[in-house]
Amino acid sequence: MEIINRELTDFKERKFPDKICFKPIGIIHTPFKTLKGIPIQSSMSDAKGTIEIFPEYILGLKDLSGFSHIYCLYFFDMVKLPVPLQSKPFLDDEVKGVFAIRTPFRPNPIGLSIFKILEIKENNINVKNVDVLDRTPILDLKPFVPGFDNLQTNKIGWLQGKIKREVS
Amino acid sequence: MEIINRELTDFKERKFPDKICFKPIGIIHTPFKTLKGIPIQSSMSDAKGTIEIFPEYILGLKDLSGFSHIYCLYFFDMVKLPVPLQSKPFLDDEVKGVFAIRTPFRPNPIGLSIFKILEIKENNINVKNVDVLDRTPILDLKPFVPGFDNLQTNKIGWLQGKIKREVS
Repeated sequence: MEIINRELTDFKERKFPDKICFKPIGIIHTPFKTLKGIPIQSSMSDAKGTIEIFPEYILGLKDLSGFSHIYCLYFFDMVKLPVPLQSKPFLDDEVKGVFAIRTPFRPNPIGLSIFKILEIKENNINVKNVDVLDRTPILDLKPFVPGFDNLQTNKIGWLQGKIKREVS
Repeated sequence: MEIINRELTDFKERKFPDKICFKPIGIIHTPFKTLKGIPIQSSMSDAKGTIEIFPEYILGLKDLSGFSHIYCLYFFDMVKLPVPLQSKPFLDDEVKGVFAIRTPFRPNPIGLSIFKILEIKENNINVKNVDVLDRTPILDLKPFVPGFDNLQTNKIGWLQGKIKREVS
C-alpha cells in the first residue's frame, strides 16, 4: 500500500467505520443479459464486453492502454443480503465457507475479474474474458502486473483437480 | 461470475445504484502503525499480520485453510475524497491516470493484496506479505487460485523496467 502525505484523514479523527459507501465509476456492457450461461471465471471466458467509464472519471484512464490486462472490481447488484455463510460452489457438491469460494453470494458482494484490454476509445474500454452480467456497476480498475500479482502455488484446497471450464 | 437461482433481485426491480454500501467483515492488525515505511505491494513485503474476522462471519472461514494464498479486499480508510484523477505513482516521476496506477488515492479507495495464509485459529487468520496499515477495515477474502488468476504478459505500460522493492 502506498501512502503519502496527500489528503489523508488525521489519525486522531480515525475511527473504525460501521458502513463503507462507494459510487460506481462506470457500467459494463456484456453479452450476458440473463443469469444463465455466464462463464464462472474470467479465465474461462472468451466473451467480449465494454466498460463504460462515466465521463467525470475519464482523466483517470490516462496510460491504461499500455497494459494488457486489468483487474476489474464490480458490484454483484443482483445479490440480496444476507447471504448464507456456507454454500455449494459450482465446482463441487459439498458446502464450503463463503471466503473459500468465489461465489457472488458474499457478505460484501464485490466481484473481481481479470480482463484483457482490447482497445480504449475515449471513456469506453473494450475488453475480453468477460464473465459478468450486462449492466453491472463498476467500482474500480487497477492495472494487472505479473511481477506483483502472479504467484506459484499448488495449495488450492477443495479446488484441487476440479478446475474445468464451466458456465452458470 | 457464478449466479444461480438463490436470493436474487428480480430483473424488473433492478436499477442502477447511485451509491453502494458495505459493512466491514473484519479488521487487519499489522506492524505498520503509521503511514511511513509500508511496503508498496504485498509481493514486496515479508511482514506478518493478523486478519481478525468479526465473530458473525466465522462460519465463512470453513475450508479456507486448504489454500496457500488469499486475495484480501480492504478499505483505505485514511484517504479523503475527492482524490486527483491523475498523480505520480511511487515508481515513476510522471503523472499517470489513477486507473493505471495502484495508489490508494482512488475514487473508490479499495485495496487489493495477496497474502500468504500462515495459520487460521478460530476467527484469526495469520498472514504474510502484509502491505497494509494497522487497523484497516476488511471488505472481503477470496481464495487465490493460480489456474484462474495467473496471467503471463509483458505489457505493463509505464511500469516496464521500473519494478523494484520499495516502501512508502
